[in-house]
Amino acid sequence: VADDSDRRLAAALDGVLDSYRVVPRLANVGGTRLPSREEVATILDDLLSLCFPGFFGREQLGELNARYVVGERCARVLTHLEAALVRAFVLEACGCRTPETDLDARAREESLAMLEALPEIRRLLATDIGAAFKGDPAATSPEEVITSYPGILAIAGHRIAHHLWVRCVPLVPRLMSEIIHSRTGIDIHPGAKIGEGFFIDHGTGVVIGETCVIGTNVKLYQGVTLGAHSVDVETPAESRGAHDPKPQRHPTLEDDVTVYAGATILGGGTVIGRGSTIGGNVWLTHGVPPGTSVVMDPPTLRYRTSG
Amino acid sequence: VADDSDRRLAAALDGVLDSYRVVPRLANVGGTRLPSREEVATILDDLLSLCFPGFFGREQLGELNARYVVGERCARVLTHLEAALVRAFVLEACGCRTPETDLDARAREESLAMLEALPEIRRLLATDIGAAFKGDPAATSPEEVITSYPGILAIAGHRIAHHLWVRCVPLVPRLMSEIIHSRTGIDIHPGAKIGEGFFIDHGTGVVIGETCVIGTNVKLYQGVTLGAHSVDVETPAESRGAHDPKPQRHPTLEDDVTVYAGATILGGGTVIGRGSTIGGNVWLTHGVPPGTSVVMDPPTLRYRTSG
Amino acid sequence: VADDSDRRLAAALDGVLDSYRVVPRLANVGGTRLPSREEVATILDDLLSLCFPGFFGREQLGELNARYVVGERCARVLTHLEAALVRAFVLEACGCRTPETDLDARAREESLAMLEALPEIRRLLATDIGAAFKGDPAATSPEEVITSYPGILAIAGHRIAHHLWVRCVPLVPRLMSEIIHSRTGIDIHPGAKIGEGFFIDHGTGVVIGETCVIGTNVKLYQGVTLGAHSVDVETPAESRGAHDPKPQRHPTLEDDVTVYAGATILGGGTVIGRGSTIGGNVWLTHGVPPGTSVVMDPPTLRYRTSG
Repeated sequence: VADDSDRRLAAALDGVLDSYRVVPRLANVGGTRLPSREEVATILDDLLSLCFPGFFGREQLGELNARYVVGERCARVLTHLEAALVRAFVLEACGCRTPETDLDARAREESLAMLEALPEIRRLLATDIGAAFKGDPAATSPEEVITSYPGILAIAGHRIAHHLWVRCVPLVPRLMSEIIHSRTGIDIHPGAKIGEGFFIDHGTGVVIGETCVIGTNVKLYQGVTLGAHSVDVETPAESRGAHDPKPQRHPTLEDDVTVYAGATILGGGTVIGRGSTIGGNVWLTHGVPPGTSVVMDPPTLRYRTSG
Repeated sequence: VADDSDRRLAAALDGVLDSYRVVPRLANVGGTRLPSREEVATILDDLLSLCFPGFFGREQLGELNARYVVGERCARVLTHLEAALVRAFVLEACGCRTPETDLDARAREESLAMLEALPEIRRLLATDIGAAFKGDPAATSPEEVITSYPGILAIAGHRIAHHLWVRCVPLVPRLMSEIIHSRTGIDIHPGAKIGEGFFIDHGTGVVIGETCVIGTNVKLYQGVTLGAHSVDVETPAESRGAHDPKPQRHPTLEDDVTVYAGATILGGGTVIGRGSTIGGNVWLTHGVPPGTSVVMDPPTLRYRTSG
Repeated sequence: VADDSDRRLAAALDGVLDSYRVVPRLANVGGTRLPSREEVATILDDLLSLCFPGFFGREQLGELNARYVVGERCARVLTHLEAALVRAFVLEACGCRTPETDLDARAREESLAMLEALPEIRRLLATDIGAAFKGDPAATSPEEVITSYPGILAIAGHRIAHHLWVRCVPLVPRLMSEIIHSRTGIDIHPGAKIGEGFFIDHGTGVVIGETCVIGTNVKLYQGVTLGAHSVDVETPAESRGAHDPKPQRHPTLEDDVTVYAGATILGGGTVIGRGSTIGGNVWLTHGVPPGTSVVMDPPTLRYRTSG
């Protein structure tokens, strides 16, 4: 039996290797190494620690060591992000990509620019945390909000990924948004434009599409979709570059809009006017003027009493 | 170029450090170290292993080694939980917190009390597993239910977190509930009161609010929200202590209630009477008497046949 | 105080050990060791790497090393899967299980068969990736789809778990499907039959029941449930074997069906005819003929304008 197992294992291996030749695009053999999800997760976690120093992990920061701990972390992000970006640039078609000879310089440039953007990202996150603390009666402290709110993790990850996205960095921002999606159940495409003071409560099931435009002080609850009407009319992906300008397929939410749990808002031409409130489970495929409150006229319920 | 990178990295570091001074509440520099999510996850996993010995990890428990393996685990939980709780007590305002000099003693007391509560928690979990096994035709064995059902992980984590919550332990129960939320998609606030024989099937998207009261033998499906009407009328978080008595903002479900997928039940005054069944996608903001079956009068569908 | 803590810790340990004797089925003491979630996750990740070589982790595959890297991985899967399966076979009642003396041989056989199935699984996954790339206007490259799309991770994990399920392997396929559910929010029972070219976009909250039958080129969005009517009429789990033939409790979707976000389709007799489109939030408990488009007649909305 042992001999037969040897033979079958060898044959199975041959079968697997053969299948790599049949569908070569699904077998990265002989190609460049991709930026792996694990290394992007490490970079993202370091960037999140730079945004909220002393809140994650076991570190204790004081005036004495802060410069060294934070400096070491910045240098580490620079090294790791640069290595990941070189691989990403080689890999992916990108409308605004530079010639291959400049990939190293571009990776260095983008990594430095990421670090340089952190103060502005932290300024935005401070407004998001203020919104969370104000918006949730169950919140007890900023420490709780920073360490325990999936909505804060989601917007922090998004603001980092979006910075890379608008600079036409391929693959890495999408890996970041999927790492956050996996941890929180909140799926924000890195292309979405989101203003200050953004808060998502609970969050599981939230989907925010690539071309959404969201104003300041907007609040979403779990299960909200800001999506596209349908993909039927779109340009097929094959004939587009990654960062070609795309028509807006997803809605616009102006300032001070609140969208309750399970609501769905669809379409690139759909504008929800400033200060509007969209009720739970509402299904909207057209815009509403500023200051509108929309609630579902609840479907008739049928009651039956046993006994 | 290398020189310019050096200069830019140093300048980026200065920018980051400066931004820590601008928004000091989002930079825990010079403050006490927080209980980290990772260490709370380790404590929670040890407590779950104590609840279901021999089901997780690679351990093999027998009569010979059980006392030593379990004893070592209890001692480890005591040490780790105590260390995390001291930090949590220092950190957070808490309506019932003791003077700072007693924090060590209180952390020891709460850690021992957690271990002492395990037999009662296991008794409750046995009823939950019975409910899962009875309620799901796809279940094949208690081993499958304990190791593979997110609803069991969610209620086990909740019963542990809730024990700490009712004893006014800050931050740590919320970290526990978010660790479970991240793993299961089920978001149960540690404040929720949940009776015996509780089962959540599938579970992704379930939200159970802080002041819910749930009776015995209640069953929920994926996407169910037991939430608050709106936060507009609430006392702002800033003017409350973490554990001040709060008005009930979330519903009451009496014994033997079943709530099907996607249903939403809102409001502190909403009482779902014993033995009631709430159909899928139903939206309820008022209570129903015992024995009521509520189904959505399904919205009219429009059919169009191609060709 | 220290002495009293000693005493209380010892008493707490006794309490925990006593409780293991009270509810023995929830304490695996003296029983066989279970296949752990961690080791099944390792096996699953190795199988996923075999499906998509060079896309995960930090490996770089070339013509020179591919045979060795892939061969080592195949041998590792064989060893680990065999060890996990022996434990699973001992544990679980299974309608088609062989006598205990043959468990080692059966575990070897199933592990080899898993490796032998990989080329066919890869052929199916190539159709799924084609469907994802075609169906999502935001997709930019197969690399992005393979590394960043939760729907691809979900179907890849499912095709592996389903292979084991149809061969009556207990527990391990369910552990696999729950590992994927935890990572993606997509809950596909390993029993579901799914045709070629399957794509789930976003995916959080999707539930696909055990006896679903899904044709080719089917596309689902987030929050779609393909479920059972109710479990009331089912044979209680206690009186069934794990793999007894079960009546179909979940729907059939024929080829080329699209189901938009939040739709719910229930019941074993429900057949969605070829080429049909089911709109967002639609609730269906009956089938529709081929080529039907079903949309919700949206519930009346109530608008109120402030000021």
